[in-house]
Amino acid sequence: MTTTPVTAPSLRHQLVDDGAVVPMGADGLYGRGASFMQVFDGLDRLLTATGVQPHVERFRFPPILPAADLLRTDYLRSFPDLVGAVHSFCGDDHAHAHLLQTIDQGGRWSDELEPTDLVLLPAACYPLYPMASGVLPEQGRVFDVLGLCFRNEPSLDPARMQSFHQREFVHLGSPERTLEFRNRWLERALEIFDELGLEVRAEVANDPFFGRAGRMLAVGQRAAALKYEVVATVADAEHPTAITSANYHLDHLTSAFGIEAPGGGPAHSACIGFGMERIVLALFARHGTDLARWPTTVAGMLT
Amino acid sequence: MTTTPVTAPSLRHQLVDDGAVVPMGADGLYGRGASFMQVFDGLDRLLTATGVQPHVERFRFPPILPAADLLRTDYLRSFPDLVGAVHSFCGDDHAHAHLLQTIDQGGRWSDELEPTDLVLLPAACYPLYPMASGVLPEQGRVFDVLGLCFRNEPSLDPARMQSFHQREFVHLGSPERTLEFRNRWLERALEIFDELGLEVRAEVANDPFFGRAGRMLAVGQRAAALKYEVVATVADAEHPTAITSANYHLDHLTSAFGIEAPGGGPAHSACIGFGMERIVLALFARHGTDLARWPTTVAGMLT
Repeated sequence: MTTTPVTAPSLRHQLVDDGAVVPMGADGLYGRGASFMQVFDGLDRLLTATGVQPHVERFRFPPILPAADLLRTDYLRSFPDLVGAVHSFCGDDHAHAHLLQTIDQGGRWSDELEPTDLVLLPAACYPLYPMASGVLPEQGRVFDVLGLCFRNEPSLDPARMQSFHQREFVHLGSPERTLEFRNRWLERALEIFDELGLEVRAEVANDPFFGRAGRMLAVGQRAAALKYEVVATVADAEHPTAITSANYHLDHLTSAFGIEAPGGGPAHSACIGFGMERIVLALFARHGTDLARWPTTVAGMLT
Repeated sequence: MTTTPVTAPSLRHQLVDDGAVVPMGADGLYGRGASFMQVFDGLDRLLTATGVQPHVERFRFPPILPAADLLRTDYLRSFPDLVGAVHSFCGDDHAHAHLLQTIDQGGRWSDELEPTDLVLLPAACYPLYPMASGVLPEQGRVFDVLGLCFRNEPSLDPARMQSFHQREFVHLGSPERTLEFRNRWLERALEIFDELGLEVRAEVANDPFFGRAGRMLAVGQRAAALKYEVVATVADAEHPTAITSANYHLDHLTSAFGIEAPGGGPAHSACIGFGMERIVLALFARHGTDLARWPTTVAGMLT
């Protein structure tokens, strides 16, 4: 209550001036400086401590994924405009000479590349489902992942980065345990943010489904309250930003990857995804960009 | 001297069995499990402690880069086959329906995407040069970066990942200071690896330049001893693997990005790049996959 939230343009300005973030010359791409990373690393440790349980399986995945795994989900049906597919050069010396000529002439050189079998990672938990294929143990499985996600949505808002970290805790198991996991983590997230001094609330939300058909999907998702977002002030108080989401996928992903409950019942999945950069930005917006002046309780939680 | 190095196929087998690495279904893509990340994080802390100096500037960048910055280097002339360009979908509902039809028919759906203005990061230091544009301070600048790099080179060898972390220390400054930085870090790296129990040596090396013209570039790079690699046993002792490289770029990158020495002399750049996953693999190859049985001095350095 002692610090005044700063508004978006001034926050961005201050963060850039302080070297906390460095615009990279493409909208939504930023380097992160020392003070940003200090908060980021502190938050990462706090979430590790919060999520520690004997049976949690910890994995870290690359920021790319086999395209085949993306095709097994409905990602290209639901979010084609956000996808990043990796293309590369597969030609000989002759084709290379042509490529260089196209570049020299300012042409569309990237059209001369070929698709690889890889796409950029859209969410931190996607690599888990293929590896969890098979019958689950009785108590289900819980995973801890941190991933660098890509969404093709260039924006000037530093809270909408094209490349960002998601820290996720994921549950695979019976419908009851899975929904209970999602709800318990949502409560826990609200408690953590409250202790960090953020003014947050949870709201029913929907994913940004593409096109006309997508509007129906969004309505259905909201009606079933499958997705909750925790929102906080980053830019301005009237338009809070989602910093975390808690998602109940029903059998959408488990069915696609042959993940089965023991005894033959349906396996469901749920995840809580912490948007790491957005949480750091919300903390800067709340407590200011000078870490030395943060409340000692908050600083203590993040060191 | 008390542990026996394991050979490549058995090392890979053991690491997969232990959950230290998880093959992701595309060659050269792996998840990293708890024991792998324990060593990785320890190594990252060790390098931080080694590189700490008051004036070192710490930045963390995303795994993607503006394509325009890659074009300002000679990357597409030298390594077109390694590049990853990001394509995405920019169409309307009608084009989307066509895309989904192509996917359903098993067609080349990725051909229906458009190039974005982004490429995958090829080396951790690339984002530094555009932001360092201008006149350097007298003593030059030193950076500490960690980046997730992409190289389009699918392989079954776990030491040749398509996505991997480079921890780099980079110097921009006068030719004398820059070369001295490169040489001092090369010595320091050899000392660190020796203390970690790895049998290493430094060798003059060349980058994998593409095509006929590339062979000439490789010869020139070796003749001028611009690149040294530190090699260690990962797969087998007769074919050691480069785990670190120390590179003197002359004015190749500084000229391209308008980085100038004070007083008008040429500014040069150099970097040492630690191949994080390869070093972890070399440590597993040397000390075994059971961390509890590692030499206490080595375990102590990495905790």
